[in-house]
Amino acid sequence: MTFTQIALEIDGPVATITLDREAKMNAFTGTMMEEMIAAFDVTDADDSVRAVIVTGRGRAFCAGADLSAGAATFDYEKLAGPKSGPVREDGSVDYSHEAVRDGGGRVTLRIFKSLKPVIAAVNGAAVGIGVTMQLAMDVRMASESARFGFVFARRGIVPEAGSSWFLSKLVGLPQALEWCMSGRVFGAEEALKGGLVRSVHAADDLLPAARALAIEIAENTSPVSVAMTRQMLWRMAGAASPWDAHKLDSRAIYARGRAGDAKEGVVSFLEKRPPVYPDKVSSDMPDFYPWWEDEVYS
Amino acid sequence: MTFTQIALEIDGPVATITLDREAKMNAFTGTMMEEMIAAFDVTDADDSVRAVIVTGRGRAFCAGADLSAGAATFDYEKLAGPKSGPVREDGSVDYSHEAVRDGGGRVTLRIFKSLKPVIAAVNGAAVGIGVTMQLAMDVRMASESARFGFVFARRGIVPEAGSSWFLSKLVGLPQALEWCMSGRVFGAEEALKGGLVRSVHAADDLLPAARALAIEIAENTSPVSVAMTRQMLWRMAGAASPWDAHKLDSRAIYARGRAGDAKEGVVSFLEKRPPVYPDKVSSDMPDFYPWWEDEVYS
Amino acid sequence: MTFTQIALEIDGPVATITLDREAKMNAFTGTMMEEMIAAFDVTDADDSVRAVIVTGRGRAFCAGADLSAGAATFDYEKLAGPKSGPVREDGSVDYSHEAVRDGGGRVTLRIFKSLKPVIAAVNGAAVGIGVTMQLAMDVRMASESARFGFVFARRGIVPEAGSSWFLSKLVGLPQALEWCMSGRVFGAEEALKGGLVRSVHAADDLLPAARALAIEIAENTSPVSVAMTRQMLWRMAGAASPWDAHKLDSRAIYARGRAGDAKEGVVSFLEKRPPVYPDKVSSDMPDFYPWWEDEVYS
Repeated sequence: MTFTQIALEIDGPVATITLDREAKMNAFTGTMMEEMIAAFDVTDADDSVRAVIVTGRGRAFCAGADLSAGAATFDYEKLAGPKSGPVREDGSVDYSHEAVRDGGGRVTLRIFKSLKPVIAAVNGAAVGIGVTMQLAMDVRMASESARFGFVFARRGIVPEAGSSWFLSKLVGLPQALEWCMSGRVFGAEEALKGGLVRSVHAADDLLPAARALAIEIAENTSPVSVAMTRQMLWRMAGAASPWDAHKLDSRAIYARGRAGDAKEGVVSFLEKRPPVYPDKVSSDMPDFYPWWEDEVYS
Repeated sequence: MTFTQIALEIDGPVATITLDREAKMNAFTGTMMEEMIAAFDVTDADDSVRAVIVTGRGRAFCAGADLSAGAATFDYEKLAGPKSGPVREDGSVDYSHEAVRDGGGRVTLRIFKSLKPVIAAVNGAAVGIGVTMQLAMDVRMASESARFGFVFARRGIVPEAGSSWFLSKLVGLPQALEWCMSGRVFGAEEALKGGLVRSVHAADDLLPAARALAIEIAENTSPVSVAMTRQMLWRMAGAASPWDAHKLDSRAIYARGRAGDAKEGVVSFLEKRPPVYPDKVSSDMPDFYPWWEDEVYS
Repeated sequence: MTFTQIALEIDGPVATITLDREAKMNAFTGTMMEEMIAAFDVTDADDSVRAVIVTGRGRAFCAGADLSAGAATFDYEKLAGPKSGPVREDGSVDYSHEAVRDGGGRVTLRIFKSLKPVIAAVNGAAVGIGVTMQLAMDVRMASESARFGFVFARRGIVPEAGSSWFLSKLVGLPQALEWCMSGRVFGAEEALKGGLVRSVHAADDLLPAARALAIEIAENTSPVSVAMTRQMLWRMAGAASPWDAHKLDSRAIYARGRAGDAKEGVVSFLEKRPPVYPDKVSSDMPDFYPWWEDEVYS
């Protein structure tokens, strides 16, 4: 696949997805949405990739939705034409998910399912979908010049991309409410204090720091273990009870405990040498994976 | 409605509810409960109100349940008389919700449904229901002299008003457990460190600071967007999966995207002028609101 | 019951469980699992016990699973022999919970149900099950020499003992993901900063500080109130809605409000004297306790 609004570069164990519309501050479009989804399909399928960094070209990370359609920006009916949209001939709205599905959510839910850790390296402005796309990523690191805004209420719309679930899981409900109800644009220090980003770096240090964390994960861990761990933690975050986790991890510990990786993990530790894990994400996930019911809209 | 134990004042876009039994340290009663619920019905219905501040008259915020009944304070059977209570003639208890419903929870669940942001300005002691009533509010700001206590275990009872759900969502489970199991009374600094309050202010600065945050929200945002945002974030905080949020916000983005507010939000931003939103909470909430099933006990 | 790999000591209102395989850095075994479960049965049944401290003998807290079986450590089939394990004659796996149940989860789910507060006093290395066993405890306090590691991905396995549910509830999802995906071993300061432990103490001060907190709870609170509070907070942490808590705490406030403890709690407070609570955990829990459906695998 040839990308036109993002770039995908694989360097050793680390893939970097760069939002690549520098002249438009990497504003989000339908094309960018499709390309991001395709890029995560590539990184999931490539066993050489152990972690994914997402960053922006130039001085912005992503300035949000492309507003070049002006007043019609969020009016999908006008953009798409009356026949293709969810408004029926009698004027009522077809609110089925197929009819009205949000594009930002397609991206975050795809990232949610990623089998590789995802690190946001936030190099500049990240507003609207530019910040909500980061919420399904595992780690957010910011440059000193990064700026963030959950500006939806300042544009007359609402938080999207699943952010009403994600954000409070990352920063707690009070901080999520204040940022989303005020629509305030804020800097890297407020993002750090509020728990949105893990660390703040000088501009030149941002990508090296993100890469260092990616390498730390890649050099020491089993790829299948990391893929399972990522899915277990994200999916149990909303579970009703630890019994759900106990039932799941009992199966996972059993399946992984008899796999080659567990033998190598223990033996290499006892022999005080680096492990060489035999199992691959592409072929050696436990036979009960995926354990969740099919998401209809995936 | 004439209030006797609270005061409701509307000044521009900000409504202030003042707990108003100064001689009793604003101790909570059945009358106060009914009046608080009625006050939020007023603020929800009045489109001029963009945010609600809750504070206390005098030196306390709310000292908790009124203990003037002494040993019978929490014994609803003795207070209400044998015929009206949930104890059946054979001595067994009717534990149906209608029979035993907690009054503190009636207040917090009403605040939970508020269409306007709610800011607690905690001017002094806030103990028992005096602090748990704050947990369904969006923001808690404290004066330096504020004191807090989840003292239920020190009175032989248990956390109420839905606080076993709310508190860990706000401050995390370990802090919630320590405060509720010890029943400790603590000051503003411990509340700030533990994440219960957003900020601590000199006594004279508390209400101005609360009002400044209320104004920040009011001046920059769409009222309908804020009402939707508030409900989306609170209700998705306990959802099992981001797919729930994705299904909800897809509908909301579609509905709000074609509304007048979204057009004004984008155009005013592009024209670098303050927005003038046409939509009203009283008449322009999306047609699928409320999207949750009726709460029987609301 | 005679314990061989732990010690259980009861001193006034505080029980101390000491992991007691000093020569093996208190590495976890099936015997230790059974003994820990039995010890919590003792502390729950003994009304004199108001809080439980868990610590380790010597310089480690618990070094994780005993790796003396080498490559077969996590291969339950090889350890148990082909007839007793979950692999069927045709080679397929019986993934029923009865067949593959994780031993670490048996411990954490037992602690989850404890009727007494549980404080981890982490005196040294706590790795693998050595740290995940702490996650169902209410408080974690560390000595300066404590070290922690969710090292599962570095051994080719996955987080167990229900930790995919517990950990993000305690430290938030981003911190949980980073620790579990990197498998990093980290010290007390990182644990404090990340919210895993409540406080860090000089080695000699650790047990006294844990005991002081246990005594604070014991001296001021109703035992039945604390037992109910603990269960309410833990079980509502994963509930979908505050209405679940409201329905539960309405019943609990009603039941506890007419009990002797509530009368004593209010009267002793008004008389400014220490309370003497009449109710006992062994006999006076509310008649609707336990309110949850039986867990099949408890």
